[in-house]
Amino acid sequence: MSTVTLGIDHTVRQQLIEAGSATIANLLYRRGLHHTMPHGLRPLADDQEPLVGPAYTLRFIPSREDLDHMGTYGREDNLHRRAIEECPVGSVLLIDAGGCTRASSMGDLMATRLRARSVAGVVTDGGYRDTAGIKATGLPCFQAQPAPPATPIGLHPVALQEPVGCGGVAVYPGDVVLGDADGVVVIPAHLVDEVAREGSRAAAYEEFAELKIRSGHPIFGVFPATEESTREYEQWVAAGRPGRE
Amino acid sequence: MSTVTLGIDHTVRQQLIEAGSATIANLLYRRGLHHTMPHGLRPLADDQEPLVGPAYTLRFIPSREDLDHMGTYGREDNLHRRAIEECPVGSVLLIDAGGCTRASSMGDLMATRLRARSVAGVVTDGGYRDTAGIKATGLPCFQAQPAPPATPIGLHPVALQEPVGCGGVAVYPGDVVLGDADGVVVIPAHLVDEVAREGSRAAAYEEFAELKIRSGHPIFGVFPATEESTREYEQWVAAGRPGRE
Amino acid sequence: MSTVTLGIDHTVRQQLIEAGSATIANLLYRRGLHHTMPHGLRPLADDQEPLVGPAYTLRFIPSREDLDHMGTYGREDNLHRRAIEECPVGSVLLIDAGGCTRASSMGDLMATRLRARSVAGVVTDGGYRDTAGIKATGLPCFQAQPAPPATPIGLHPVALQEPVGCGGVAVYPGDVVLGDADGVVVIPAHLVDEVAREGSRAAAYEEFAELKIRSGHPIFGVFPATEESTREYEQWVAAGRPGRE
Amino acid sequence: MSTVTLGIDHTVRQQLIEAGSATIANLLYRRGLHHTMPHGLRPLADDQEPLVGPAYTLRFIPSREDLDHMGTYGREDNLHRRAIEECPVGSVLLIDAGGCTRASSMGDLMATRLRARSVAGVVTDGGYRDTAGIKATGLPCFQAQPAPPATPIGLHPVALQEPVGCGGVAVYPGDVVLGDADGVVVIPAHLVDEVAREGSRAAAYEEFAELKIRSGHPIFGVFPATEESTREYEQWVAAGRPGRE
Amino acid sequence: MSTVTLGIDHTVRQQLIEAGSATIANLLYRRGLHHTMPHGLRPLADDQEPLVGPAYTLRFIPSREDLDHMGTYGREDNLHRRAIEECPVGSVLLIDAGGCTRASSMGDLMATRLRARSVAGVVTDGGYRDTAGIKATGLPCFQAQPAPPATPIGLHPVALQEPVGCGGVAVYPGDVVLGDADGVVVIPAHLVDEVAREGSRAAAYEEFAELKIRSGHPIFGVFPATEESTREYEQWVAAGRPGRE
Amino acid sequence: MSTVTLGIDHTVRQQLIEAGSATIANLLYRRGLHHTMPHGLRPLADDQEPLVGPAYTLRFIPSREDLDHMGTYGREDNLHRRAIEECPVGSVLLIDAGGCTRASSMGDLMATRLRARSVAGVVTDGGYRDTAGIKATGLPCFQAQPAPPATPIGLHPVALQEPVGCGGVAVYPGDVVLGDADGVVVIPAHLVDEVAREGSRAAAYEEFAELKIRSGHPIFGVFPATEESTREYEQWVAAGRPGRE
Repeated sequence: MSTVTLGIDHTVRQQLIEAGSATIANLLYRRGLHHTMPHGLRPLADDQEPLVGPAYTLRFIPSREDLDHMGTYGREDNLHRRAIEECPVGSVLLIDAGGCTRASSMGDLMATRLRARSVAGVVTDGGYRDTAGIKATGLPCFQAQPAPPATPIGLHPVALQEPVGCGGVAVYPGDVVLGDADGVVVIPAHLVDEVAREGSRAAAYEEFAELKIRSGHPIFGVFPATEESTREYEQWVAAGRPGRE
Repeated sequence: MSTVTLGIDHTVRQQLIEAGSATIANLLYRRGLHHTMPHGLRPLADDQEPLVGPAYTLRFIPSREDLDHMGTYGREDNLHRRAIEECPVGSVLLIDAGGCTRASSMGDLMATRLRARSVAGVVTDGGYRDTAGIKATGLPCFQAQPAPPATPIGLHPVALQEPVGCGGVAVYPGDVVLGDADGVVVIPAHLVDEVAREGSRAAAYEEFAELKIRSGHPIFGVFPATEESTREYEQWVAAGRPGRE
Repeated sequence: MSTVTLGIDHTVRQQLIEAGSATIANLLYRRGLHHTMPHGLRPLADDQEPLVGPAYTLRFIPSREDLDHMGTYGREDNLHRRAIEECPVGSVLLIDAGGCTRASSMGDLMATRLRARSVAGVVTDGGYRDTAGIKATGLPCFQAQPAPPATPIGLHPVALQEPVGCGGVAVYPGDVVLGDADGVVVIPAHLVDEVAREGSRAAAYEEFAELKIRSGHPIFGVFPATEESTREYEQWVAAGRPGRE
Repeated sequence: MSTVTLGIDHTVRQQLIEAGSATIANLLYRRGLHHTMPHGLRPLADDQEPLVGPAYTLRFIPSREDLDHMGTYGREDNLHRRAIEECPVGSVLLIDAGGCTRASSMGDLMATRLRARSVAGVVTDGGYRDTAGIKATGLPCFQAQPAPPATPIGLHPVALQEPVGCGGVAVYPGDVVLGDADGVVVIPAHLVDEVAREGSRAAAYEEFAELKIRSGHPIFGVFPATEESTREYEQWVAAGRPGRE
Repeated sequence: MSTVTLGIDHTVRQQLIEAGSATIANLLYRRGLHHTMPHGLRPLADDQEPLVGPAYTLRFIPSREDLDHMGTYGREDNLHRRAIEECPVGSVLLIDAGGCTRASSMGDLMATRLRARSVAGVVTDGGYRDTAGIKATGLPCFQAQPAPPATPIGLHPVALQEPVGCGGVAVYPGDVVLGDADGVVVIPAHLVDEVAREGSRAAAYEEFAELKIRSGHPIFGVFPATEESTREYEQWVAAGRPGRE
Repeated sequence: MSTVTLGIDHTVRQQLIEAGSATIANLLYRRGLHHTMPHGLRPLADDQEPLVGPAYTLRFIPSREDLDHMGTYGREDNLHRRAIEECPVGSVLLIDAGGCTRASSMGDLMATRLRARSVAGVVTDGGYRDTAGIKATGLPCFQAQPAPPATPIGLHPVALQEPVGCGGVAVYPGDVVLGDADGVVVIPAHLVDEVAREGSRAAAYEEFAELKIRSGHPIFGVFPATEESTREYEQWVAAGRPGRE
């Protein structure tokens, strides 16, 4: 599927960013999906760019001292390092660390390589080392909390591109990941286009609603939208969105 | 009581801000109150203005799928939305979310409305969605951690203006809330004036003590204050507080 | 030992800062030490200077109401306050608070005094009060989370310069502490010189590796270092490190 | 409603006990209710009788030292003590302690009184004191973990018969509570009769299924039930349930 | 002091056991001590005898691989093993494991030796290995949860007879420990005699109150005791406590 | 490998049971393996038989409402149900539930089927439903805590016989699992024979040591074993183990 290798359609990407992760999660909730935002993940940098792309998954299990040490870590068949080289352009490296923050899910050299390879960003339910260095690469990243100790102290990479859990959310390879200031939402691949389109409209409506509320209107009658407020919104759009910053 | 509907006396407000939440908590501790700062709450924005005002409480319980969904959320008798419209000017919307961070205690449109209505700010032992949008409103807010999923996924608003718990602290409607970089302190209404006055004096003394300590004095004899250091402090005040920045 | 009273050799200090806490932890891990970074500690300020110095330890136990109150807190034999006055120039005040964040490990006047006395900084597995004031002193500090309530509410200072635990890590007086954006690493005293030297070289190699990776080289063959990449690195050093920023 | 004051219909009670809490939770789940079993509650005694009855709720908030002490505890208007006297015959005293296990939700004298008054039992998301004494009364009770310290150390009774949260589950006064070895399930009042009836049938089917499986049949074709296995089950019932213990 | 080396006076011991840990904690609470029961500790065996004796403390810190291994564990100066041999007859070995349950605070051979040496029992805020074997010795023990891995994996014994923390409670050597079905209470040495005496009376009153309540009396007027109920209790005592089992 | 399909050699099984999980974990620790006992797992029944067998793994991820419901649960290709039918005779069904206790890892009908199929037992880092029913089957089972809600509420079975994590321990298919009163230990397949043999000897030595200690010998010189005590032990064995119960 082209989506997986080349990332995501430009228009859909823009719509998702306009909508934001919290609004997209709302639209998935209206479709019966209650657990779409991994719990407790935060952006690494306050000002990082939004993250959008299909998930390329890496699964860790706990390490075992005889299998995991700096010797095995350096081997070319190490799946952690293979993930860095094989994760497709435009995709999101999504890591199931079993919530372990005693050992690192990634460091700055790996982030530098991902950035050089035009990978979209990284999400882990564990944490990173060399966080200053990762921020310097500009790669958008999400984690639970910093986890600087060496990877083999706690984690063993065991599989690529399997369905995984991340922060209490199911992630299937190819699901689309959107990350921003609110956190991360995981969108089942078949729903991406419709929630992106709907989310973009919802964001435009919110802009209209915010103008109304800032000018003194109560939230009743504006949020959530009513039939009447929707009509008024459409007139506002037709009028060229007056009052917009 | 005028305090509840119109917020708080200007002088008292200034004294509380000068004192700071940690010093006020100390003064309450000297009066036998050990649990006055909800545990684990942080300001939403690093640079937000201090928060002061009487508590207007909202209590959530866990949601139930047949009672809580987008349909019921939109109704005009929804207590979550009524709280946004009915919370008095100058007061602090104080939310007991039972510590739940799986669903949002508030989003940016609600924050915009509260700001437009001159509500002082919001405190929850859960978290918010649209945090970037809330920060943009300038409304001072405190939370445990971000909680972007839709409110009805986890929370059902059940009562306004009841005594509640928040981060392990009892909050009675009308208690005065002070929030700053250190966190939030809840002040029983009948103690506000005296701890504000005393706290303001303590803050002035701390300014004096800091000057002494910066110039090389040990903390012994200066902090905590002794009779002698208090005398010296009074002379410093009488002399126009020399050395002050 | 001069190290304990006067802090740490200037060259070693520089090498440790260049290496960074995560790299030093890696080198300790290669020597069989798996638990060297206290779990969950963060810098108080995002932009604080790196922290380096030998550990001077303070141990707290839970407080007891008849022994711990503002009266006993003010006495000159209070070990918490003695630690502030007796912690040597250049050393790191390292506090075992048993992970308690219900009461403060330090406030801003104490931080002002430590700065005036040229103490290197403070580490606690609890938290601080007056965090804005502490940041203003410029003293580099690490904590689990803010803990503004008065110390005697939860903590009783019981001993100075004993071996302690901090965030799950053993700390012996005189162990060298390094703190930066990634957190804190505790280095057994007898290993400091060798891991500093090795860490400094590792950091220089990482600079070389980052240049290679930014220019498109895969991580394989560069990270971890191979014999060949090490040879190439040495040529790069001999050539005056071309391409460095 | 007679159910609330006199407990619950005898047949429904029997059906609920036959079904068991886990099966009833399944039937509620099929009706869209995902959170019906308070998380982490256990029976006080391994061999206590099943607990069935409508919920009579008591809500605690954190205590405050000036309002909560042995003096106020002894007053006749203390809601904790009033709950013990006013909780109707046959009902379940369901306590929202905000998950607090630092102070007791009930002791043995209160349990003795509830037993004497023919109250069905007690559920708390906190814990009890005098657990040996409570077990001796025979009153079926559920808790998170033992919590022997005196109630006013941590808890203030604030309301009776309000909707509350308990272990992450919404409980409305009059909801029916069923507790057994698996834990506690909270059944919305309007669904009790139908899930009791259905649950009793499911339990009978499970007895049939267990006989089949014990005799070597795979779980496929028996669990979950198929059309064919249901027909076979009905023949087994018609034949007088041969093989039953 | 004879109490420390020979355990505790027989009458006081009996009074403490009659009172029970929850009642003793109440009496300490009335004297202003709020944190006297280590949080989350449970008896190892359901039917173990009550534990009473002065605390002999052992403090652990986290282990370090070069200092802690089976080689150092076997040495005669190992403080963990010395504690087993040196803990006085009749005393309680009270262990501060920093709450660590990743490694064992004691195993069955150590328990066998303590029993042979007539030590009263053991309390840890960590856990034990060989729990079946420990139960077989009959030694009353309390722990947070089982912790079978070898001690040096996580714990290093660092000091005997220091003041320590245990489950959030301060313990000074010589404090008296009482453990029963409700958990453990730590009694400051100078308060033992008076709370034992008072606790024993409270237990006798509770026996009277229970008889009243079982015969249909409300808790009001009986619990807590009133002047009148106390008079009636004294008559009951004078009459030879009729109705007692 | 015959071990995987037919369970485990009878002698090795006996040796492992004699040694016990804590002793086996010690022997693995001496070989450099620090994390071999899943943290926080307990036997379901106090008196269940020991569990021994090679691991047959089942991996769950979080459920998603459109993929996981009673409809999909009933399908014949459901991996949860296939695991019950395909797990080999004599093996241990070892479940990675990601620590989720909000939904059931197994119920009583599945346990009945496993018992009927002569599977050795079940281990999960989540929990079970119908615990009374499972105990009645006699199947030895280990869990973190009871988890009665229906599986699809929280868990989706995603793979059989992959390497997994369980309670912080790596488990590879075919590793041998030993479970008893202390908990569960996971033994890498290639080490089973040697640690079983060594563990059995260690258990015999412990029997000797216990006799010595019960008769008044200090732990020094007996535990850990010395050269001299080992010689004495061998004489005791040669003499027919006098004093044994």
